[in-house]
Amino acid sequence: MIRVALDAMGGDNAPATAVHGALLAARADLRVLLVGDPAAIEAEIAAHPDLPGRANVGIVPASEKVSSHEDGARAVRAKPDSSVVVTCRQVRAGDADAAVSMGNTGAMMAASALHIRRAPGVLRPAIATVIPTRGGYTVLLDAGANAEAKPEHLVQFALMGRLLAQTVLQRPEPRVGLLSIGEEPERGDALVQAAHQLLVGTPGFVGNVEGRDIPRGSVDVVVTDGFTGNVALKLYEASAEFILGEVRAAARSGARAKLGGLLLRPAVRRMRDRLDPDLYGGAMLLGVQGPAVIGHGSGNAVAVRHAVDVAARAVSENIIGRLSEALSPAADSPAAT
Amino acid sequence: MIRVALDAMGGDNAPATAVHGALLAARADLRVLLVGDPAAIEAEIAAHPDLPGRANVGIVPASEKVSSHEDGARAVRAKPDSSVVVTCRQVRAGDADAAVSMGNTGAMMAASALHIRRAPGVLRPAIATVIPTRGGYTVLLDAGANAEAKPEHLVQFALMGRLLAQTVLQRPEPRVGLLSIGEEPERGDALVQAAHQLLVGTPGFVGNVEGRDIPRGSVDVVVTDGFTGNVALKLYEASAEFILGEVRAAARSGARAKLGGLLLRPAVRRMRDRLDPDLYGGAMLLGVQGPAVIGHGSGNAVAVRHAVDVAARAVSENIIGRLSEALSPAADSPAAT
Repeated sequence: MIRVALDAMGGDNAPATAVHGALLAARADLRVLLVGDPAAIEAEIAAHPDLPGRANVGIVPASEKVSSHEDGARAVRAKPDSSVVVTCRQVRAGDADAAVSMGNTGAMMAASALHIRRAPGVLRPAIATVIPTRGGYTVLLDAGANAEAKPEHLVQFALMGRLLAQTVLQRPEPRVGLLSIGEEPERGDALVQAAHQLLVGTPGFVGNVEGRDIPRGSVDVVVTDGFTGNVALKLYEASAEFILGEVRAAARSGARAKLGGLLLRPAVRRMRDRLDPDLYGGAMLLGVQGPAVIGHGSGNAVAVRHAVDVAARAVSENIIGRLSEALSPAADSPAAT
Repeated sequence: MIRVALDAMGGDNAPATAVHGALLAARADLRVLLVGDPAAIEAEIAAHPDLPGRANVGIVPASEKVSSHEDGARAVRAKPDSSVVVTCRQVRAGDADAAVSMGNTGAMMAASALHIRRAPGVLRPAIATVIPTRGGYTVLLDAGANAEAKPEHLVQFALMGRLLAQTVLQRPEPRVGLLSIGEEPERGDALVQAAHQLLVGTPGFVGNVEGRDIPRGSVDVVVTDGFTGNVALKLYEASAEFILGEVRAAARSGARAKLGGLLLRPAVRRMRDRLDPDLYGGAMLLGVQGPAVIGHGSGNAVAVRHAVDVAARAVSENIIGRLSEALSPAADSPAAT
């Protein structure tokens, strides 16, 4: 049985949404530990008498919580009994196999980095996100765990991303690209140039890719530092929102267009669901000793269930163990260029 | 009369498209100098006997050309008589007021940096692009002139971008944001943190913005280094292409959707034109002594005309002179933080 600790007090409508999502996710072989204010959590559980998941959730008390407006790193240090910290401590203590929070991203990153041990061989944990692209999905990392990175960190990110693409995206031979501003190895800043040298010869590495290659799905894994990756991820999500908004506005620009928009609506809605960060979302902090999944704060109960599922899958596929395995030899023998 | 030198041999369908665009742009008070193979250019002019612009173009011979596949910087050094180099030299010699190329971006950047003098007070020229965003347009810079930047460069980019927003976008008081991974001044990498400190108190500066603020049009000017800016620009363009492709696919997913798509088509086409990089496009190298406009290689004749118009406008609005003015005092008296 897999045990996932869920920060019940994180997210826009906590604890209602988190508890509802947990009840949707929990089953005989997947126990969800709800971390937070016991009375509030119990009240929410009582509000869903019909969900069978009730039999497979537990409650772990935490007296504090971190709001989405706080500085995450600071709040985690100031509130040792906050739900996000207690959630991560469940993993450290061996009481849970993975941690999930839909709350403050910075707080979850800090809490998991501080309270879940780094996996052996890992220099820096990285946030990996799975984003929808032409023809499928692409892993982008680091999406913001480290504002600065060194070339050897990017090499580890490449190996971690590859493993995630193999397990979560089911790609046996993932193609890995290094995000730069030109395909030639000498393009980009000093970090990217040095990382490119180290990456040549590593499994799946196909060279530099550019910003345009992300939506085009040119590779399965896009490797970058946490600054560029975070800018790219947020830009990408907001671009989809913007373009779809423009399409909606076009569909209101006259009687003919209005009718067209009405007829097209179900098809566009299906398409939009594929692009919805709350549904495909769930970033994962890779490189710590238990998978730590960070969901979108605005996610609904289905998004919570999805995030819990992703965490459970990472456990059942033993991503952490395979990561440590993959990193240890790679760190010793970088391929010659 | 304004004189614009146009690299007639640059772009996907050169010289046909470039010459056609020049004939659309040229008028009594806007002379276009077509730079390239005289025989090929003359043949293209002859193909448009009906365009009145014929009376207002000239030909400047150049015996070489740089293709889009070459390493731009290298090619510019190896081919001193290439059309892109001769185009920029026209500005340096005082025979033209601005330079335009729809060809190899790297070559145009290198040629204008090498052959058009830097404007007084400018530390580093930057590529500024005007991109469509919610409710209007936003200036993004640096979009790729410098893979690495120092904090004081970003401060100059902010001033340059502000001026461009005032003149080209007609915003009297542009809002300027620094691209980072969080709104708090201490977020981001060392470059952004230091730049933020220097920017506090400069005209129009509103603080850090995130990737999501670009499509949302939260500010009029987004300031970043050339690495992040280039990744962001290419990602943004390809995102629009991807999402619109998904909408098109949705509109083919059944009889009802097909009819809807057909009815909606004219409205979506108008909207798409606003997002088309060939139409809004034309990046500008700011900080050299004559405006240097870099168009999309895939642009059609209308895109060429647009790029020539943008260059002419930069001349008539005296962007370069005002830039030097704006930079000189700012460099001496950075606002206290």
